[in-house]
Amino acid sequence: MLNPLMLPELRDLLEQGDTEVLAELVTELHPASVAEFSEGLSVEEVWRLLDYAPIPVQADIFSFYSPRKQEELVSGVGRKRMSRLLEEMSHDDRVDLLQRLDDDVVEGLLPLVAKADREDIRKLLSYPEDSAGAVMTTDYATLQPDVTVSEALTLLRKQASRAETIYYVYVVDEERRLIGFVSLRDLVLARPNDVVRNIMQTEVISVRVDEDQEEVAQLLSKYDFLAIPVLDTRDRLVGIVTHDDVADVMEAEATEDFHLAAAVSPLVEGYQDSGIWSLYSRRVSWLVILVFVNLVSSGVIAAYEETLQSVIALAFFLPLLIDSGGNTGSQAATLIIRGLATDEVHLKQWLKVLGKELLVGLSLGGTMAIASMSLGMFRGGWEVGVIVGLSMLCIVVLTNLIGALLPFILTKMKIDPAVASSPLITTVSDATGLILYFNIATWVLGSPAVIQP
Amino acid sequence: MLNPLMLPELRDLLEQGDTEVLAELVTELHPASVAEFSEGLSVEEVWRLLDYAPIPVQADIFSFYSPRKQEELVSGVGRKRMSRLLEEMSHDDRVDLLQRLDDDVVEGLLPLVAKADREDIRKLLSYPEDSAGAVMTTDYATLQPDVTVSEALTLLRKQASRAETIYYVYVVDEERRLIGFVSLRDLVLARPNDVVRNIMQTEVISVRVDEDQEEVAQLLSKYDFLAIPVLDTRDRLVGIVTHDDVADVMEAEATEDFHLAAAVSPLVEGYQDSGIWSLYSRRVSWLVILVFVNLVSSGVIAAYEETLQSVIALAFFLPLLIDSGGNTGSQAATLIIRGLATDEVHLKQWLKVLGKELLVGLSLGGTMAIASMSLGMFRGGWEVGVIVGLSMLCIVVLTNLIGALLPFILTKMKIDPAVASSPLITTVSDATGLILYFNIATWVLGSPAVIQP
Repeated sequence: MLNPLMLPELRDLLEQGDTEVLAELVTELHPASVAEFSEGLSVEEVWRLLDYAPIPVQADIFSFYSPRKQEELVSGVGRKRMSRLLEEMSHDDRVDLLQRLDDDVVEGLLPLVAKADREDIRKLLSYPEDSAGAVMTTDYATLQPDVTVSEALTLLRKQASRAETIYYVYVVDEERRLIGFVSLRDLVLARPNDVVRNIMQTEVISVRVDEDQEEVAQLLSKYDFLAIPVLDTRDRLVGIVTHDDVADVMEAEATEDFHLAAAVSPLVEGYQDSGIWSLYSRRVSWLVILVFVNLVSSGVIAAYEETLQSVIALAFFLPLLIDSGGNTGSQAATLIIRGLATDEVHLKQWLKVLGKELLVGLSLGGTMAIASMSLGMFRGGWEVGVIVGLSMLCIVVLTNLIGALLPFILTKMKIDPAVASSPLITTVSDATGLILYFNIATWVLGSPAVIQP
Repeated sequence: MLNPLMLPELRDLLEQGDTEVLAELVTELHPASVAEFSEGLSVEEVWRLLDYAPIPVQADIFSFYSPRKQEELVSGVGRKRMSRLLEEMSHDDRVDLLQRLDDDVVEGLLPLVAKADREDIRKLLSYPEDSAGAVMTTDYATLQPDVTVSEALTLLRKQASRAETIYYVYVVDEERRLIGFVSLRDLVLARPNDVVRNIMQTEVISVRVDEDQEEVAQLLSKYDFLAIPVLDTRDRLVGIVTHDDVADVMEAEATEDFHLAAAVSPLVEGYQDSGIWSLYSRRVSWLVILVFVNLVSSGVIAAYEETLQSVIALAFFLPLLIDSGGNTGSQAATLIIRGLATDEVHLKQWLKVLGKELLVGLSLGGTMAIASMSLGMFRGGWEVGVIVGLSMLCIVVLTNLIGALLPFILTKMKIDPAVASSPLITTVSDATGLILYFNIATWVLGSPAVIQP
């Protein structure tokens, strides 16, 4: 086996122009491996390395570089060479690249691309981002229904070099309407004289071109398909989405939910590719909004100023009660948000979930009340202990219900429930928790604010 | 196309025993669809429905039911029938099922399973959970290197009914050591007289049987493979992991990270399948630990009791400063944790990330200081305004750095960085934030605690 090289060794080879070794490297290794070990080279060095491979292999390797590297490579090479590569790249990878480039760069490249490819690119670029149309490829294999199996195999051999997969073959009529589907496995197993129409499956699961990419990924994964056909509004086959897009789509969607859950507007580029300003602007809005929501909390404390002044020990437990409420609420919200995202919890089950969370909240609240009562007694005597313990119980039960309910309400309002982020839940829980705390304190202490005047 | 039925219609058909329609339903639709629309039937009804399909189709449909339904179905049927189904299920699906059943149920079933299958099951059950060995299937297609392409195609036809995929075929020597790989596409494109040894690829990317399933899923996704071979310590082929496992593994790992990030020990079953006790026990430990960590925060406030007593307005801003610190820290931690999980941020980049986050923290802190200074002046005069604004700046910068650094430290310590959960970050930030706040207050106010005695 070839061992991937260290960067300095690779630079030496390029320096010496060792054709034999370099050609073997770039053609024998998997394109993803070549891209991985040469990612650290300069733009000029990468192009020099790619020279040792035939154009189709160059296109393959190119599509495995990171998005950022691809963009650098485009600007570091002549338009002629780049347009040759574009013609050889798989249709979904090249659209993915062109979507990220500046419009004038794209307009500079397209005139040099072969006409058929150019039209294909313009069509794919016109679909909305995150739709099936934007992630699909138009390199798929098709057959007419009335050919025999042996004719079909011959036809597939001709399509094999272009098609992204020949394992799934779609059967279309004269108007390209999808009427059936055969796998290469079925064709290999069938008798040579069988007619495709008789062995094809007619129950074909497909998606519309404007379907959301997340739905498409879930369908592919649910049915364990290698690919799913994409139809236009007139049931004509316009592309396929293949299994290798599933993992990318799922990872992107999970990252988006993670960012939302921490009150960050999802980053379009990765963390490393985001500048200071981009990171700042995606984080600042929620933080500032939450500062102003906190007006309510400070108002609640101000309203109970006298109670607090007379028993200053009550202030010691503000962080404890506030944090515990926020933590409990985040836990409940995360469980429900993730359950909704993985289709394990359904909107109509909200009442059942709330019942369950009432019991879980009571158990959690009871345990934490005991723990915090002991803390309260230690720092402020038995009265404070009772106040803190009782408040903890009420706060945990209540914030737990808020955390569990909010994702359902947001989903019902057609808002992504992941925005029921921990920070939002924390801030909402605060005000509620403080009101409970001071009311319980006034009640246990016999309300100095009422008695003293 | 067949329309999936509503449950009442399906029950009517079962009642009437309409053999023709039912047989068409269970054999023509995709097994995943059959499982989906019949999930709501009772155990007894499901078995009655499955009777209309041949055993291999029954096994397919069975493996698409939810884990919970599968367990119910096992206990609602005779061991003989279940063992027949087990023999027909794909090797990874049946191990997945058996792992979830009670040991005595498994021991009751195994003696009735054919000997070869029984041995295979025992072997797969012996691999650690979450390892390549536990998710792999042993139904794969192999060839010897010295057969011709036409012989290879004949051999594959024989293996096709058993193998999970014949699109990737592994070439092994007499001792089952993996020496190469051909795809069905390569075989279909090659000349019939070519010898497999001459057309096979020898650079085969493989994994060890004890490799973590997450790593395996990432490799499959990185190289866009349909399957990846699994080798034992002596390089012998023991199984393959196929593309359809990638989405399941990735979803499970993302859910685990989501739960950890909210300080919930990851649920083994889904939310719906978890009882009150299970939910309670997976949430309570972190919550109670955080109650005790909060001893530090209450201690800090107690130490500054006199400062607080003299300017009670300082208490109004405790929730604001605590929440903002926690929110900023969670944002930074989430960005880094997700970056590390998707391999976009690397351990050795910690210093660069910290530098970036220092600048982002200063920008965020500056903005939030202005917002909170105005709040402070509104509620407590200009002195309090300055204290709150200045504290906000320091707290945001500091908690942002803590949030960004903690995931690197945990990774370095070989702990899953996702445990740097928002609740943990919040609690750690609290104590630091309070110390800053009261020190700044003492400094601006001229330290009543020091001056007054």
